Amino acid sequence: MNNFKFQNPTRLIFGKGMIAELSKAIPAGKRIMITFGGGSVKKNGVYDQVIKALEGREYVEFWGIEPNPSIETLRKAIALGKEKNVDFLLAVGGGSVLDGTKLISAGLLYDGDAWDLVKRGAAKDTIPMGAVLTLPATGSEMNNGAVISRHETKEKYPFYSNYPVFSILDPETTFTLPAHQIACGLADTFVHVMEQYMTTTGQSRLMDRWAESILSTVVEIAPKIKANQQDYNVMADFMLSATMALNGFIAMGVTQDWATHMIGHELTALHGLTHGATLAIVFPGTLRTLRQQKQDKILQYGERVWGITEGLVDERVDQAIQKTEEFFRSLGLSTRLGEENIGDETIKEIERRFNAANVAYGDAGNVTGAVAKQILENCK
Amino acid sequence: MNNFKFQNPTRLIFGKGMIAELSKAIPAGKRIMITFGGGSVKKNGVYDQVIKALEGREYVEFWGIEPNPSIETLRKAIALGKEKNVDFLLAVGGGSVLDGTKLISAGLLYDGDAWDLVKRGAAKDTIPMGAVLTLPATGSEMNNGAVISRHETKEKYPFYSNYPVFSILDPETTFTLPAHQIACGLADTFVHVMEQYMTTTGQSRLMDRWAESILSTVVEIAPKIKANQQDYNVMADFMLSATMALNGFIAMGVTQDWATHMIGHELTALHGLTHGATLAIVFPGTLRTLRQQKQDKILQYGERVWGITEGLVDERVDQAIQKTEEFFRSLGLSTRLGEENIGDETIKEIERRFNAANVAYGDAGNVTGAVAKQILENCK
Repeated sequence: MNNFKFQNPTRLIFGKGMIAELSKAIPAGKRIMITFGGGSVKKNGVYDQVIKALEGREYVEFWGIEPNPSIETLRKAIALGKEKNVDFLLAVGGGSVLDGTKLISAGLLYDGDAWDLVKRGAAKDTIPMGAVLTLPATGSEMNNGAVISRHETKEKYPFYSNYPVFSILDPETTFTLPAHQIACGLADTFVHVMEQYMTTTGQSRLMDRWAESILSTVVEIAPKIKANQQDYNVMADFMLSATMALNGFIAMGVTQDWATHMIGHELTALHGLTHGATLAIVFPGTLRTLRQQKQDKILQYGERVWGITEGLVDERVDQAIQKTEEFFRSLGLSTRLGEENIGDETIKEIERRFNAANVAYGDAGNVTGAVAKQILENCK
Repeated sequence: MNNFKFQNPTRLIFGKGMIAELSKAIPAGKRIMITFGGGSVKKNGVYDQVIKALEGREYVEFWGIEPNPSIETLRKAIALGKEKNVDFLLAVGGGSVLDGTKLISAGLLYDGDAWDLVKRGAAKDTIPMGAVLTLPATGSEMNNGAVISRHETKEKYPFYSNYPVFSILDPETTFTLPAHQIACGLADTFVHVMEQYMTTTGQSRLMDRWAESILSTVVEIAPKIKANQQDYNVMADFMLSATMALNGFIAMGVTQDWATHMIGHELTALHGLTHGATLAIVFPGTLRTLRQQKQDKILQYGERVWGITEGLVDERVDQAIQKTEEFFRSLGLSTRLGEENIGDETIKEIERRFNAANVAYGDAGNVTGAVAKQILENCK
């Protein structure tokens, strides 16, 4: 096991009716800015619950943080927050609203253009934020990461700043999510785990098993969600799994990968694909490309998550990769670039970007532009 | 899944050589009191590492916090801390030293006798404490619980106050632990998980699997530790498992039991048995007594942890309970009261105490004095 430091200060407030806890969770006397995405929270009752909980409090609303939150939008939120002298942020929505709000919370204490902060990759000074999560997927509700896009240049970068001081997760808020959002959320959860698990064997028995626990849970609940998206316990399992997939709990003392994510971010930046949808395409390609390097872990994964114990090594690896792709397809997601009309030009552009930035991702540090190209070729 | 709130602020600093991080982990300018148990940390090099890390800092040492820390000893520590105007505590040792230090950290801000705090069961005002853990077992390094004894009256009660602000866990500090301590630590870890798991099925797929992950890991590493207690990765797995077994991570949204612990505490109070050793005796008796009520969960546990899939329901339950007792025996622990010369008078006294306190423990709230007696009869 590698040495590590772990701390996660976010308070999780989980369950039916818990949005009402907002009144206690936000300290008295704060000048709050509530950040929202589009209007879905007005249709599903979340907005009403939030406003009711904040009765008598001082707040301003900022609407319109879009999927893959853009610096262009966030600049406006920061300007409004500065104007209103805001000192507490409440993000209400999915991972994009939460991610965007993390940049706002740093931008409010920064004099220059907030894009500087994104380019630096991190910010330490932030004003506190809380969250009401409505879409299980990104894990942003219990980590300090965000991904921010810049539309004019089609760029998309990770950014690290503050953990939400609290996050409220009520599974009932997911009952009316569009099926595609659910599918992307499940894929996102699955691949978040994989980025911390699909490396080498023997680093930590417990972290391996905790990762496999989330994978098995997601595999088990996916068809149940399809059958009945209003089954509270199943949606609660989904919501908890998504949060636990990216809050550091399964990352203690083990190496991480993230090559699939870095390639996926480019597909979103270039084609606007939903994040989870890009992962369902890229991850099987990553496995096909790095099957030798990751062989032992693929075998362990195949056995423990899919029950694959028969056959030669190569056959078992094949089966594990096939099961993975089939799982994503069972969610209703594309798993090949062609299905999304993405061709060789995109592959070439991503290779170019990786080479220009001189990066080498993955747990072995070998996913260069050339390997990213191979991976994408294996997603055709 | 039940509604829940979760937060765990402790910073975990884990790995080889990490005691050196103390110099950064304790804020500058603090007047520190370091608390110790007996002298083992002087033999295994931990004391030297701590003192080296704190070179140039202002500190006083308090020695002699015993296993099952007593109010009698802790009063002395509180007096010394008040005299020296201490404002930071560093506990160096096993769970008893950490537990005792939690009471000290509350007692330093309390004018009366600290036993009042224990009787109240909790304290809010505390001075910050950090820890260097040397014995994986109690989980005290990452929770806010403690258990405090009073020798003169043979009483032992749980007490809740502060989380350590940080805990340093270096698996190398466990290389020279006595075999009995290791065995008790493994049993303690195992039963901590059981108290949060062996209730009813279907509350949370993920929490069930995370609990089973710790159980399976403990079962897997126990013989490896016996074979080579200086295998770093195995001891790291042990240390991480013990911490994760009682830091709230596997308790989200599920009911808990703790009847075995409450009975075990009485055995320690009356006979001085090590905590983990009491659990190895009581827990199989709890299963034998409540096998009907816990049947579905025993079956799930038997299948997922021990691979028991054959036979009639009753036979599978029998096997699961037998496997559990055999596991404790494989650690070298007693699993029957007679082996520790504990007879009917103790059973009668525990029944009397439970009745006098009018308690009913367990996840179903039915472990009264009469049921505790049955459980202990089933430990004969």
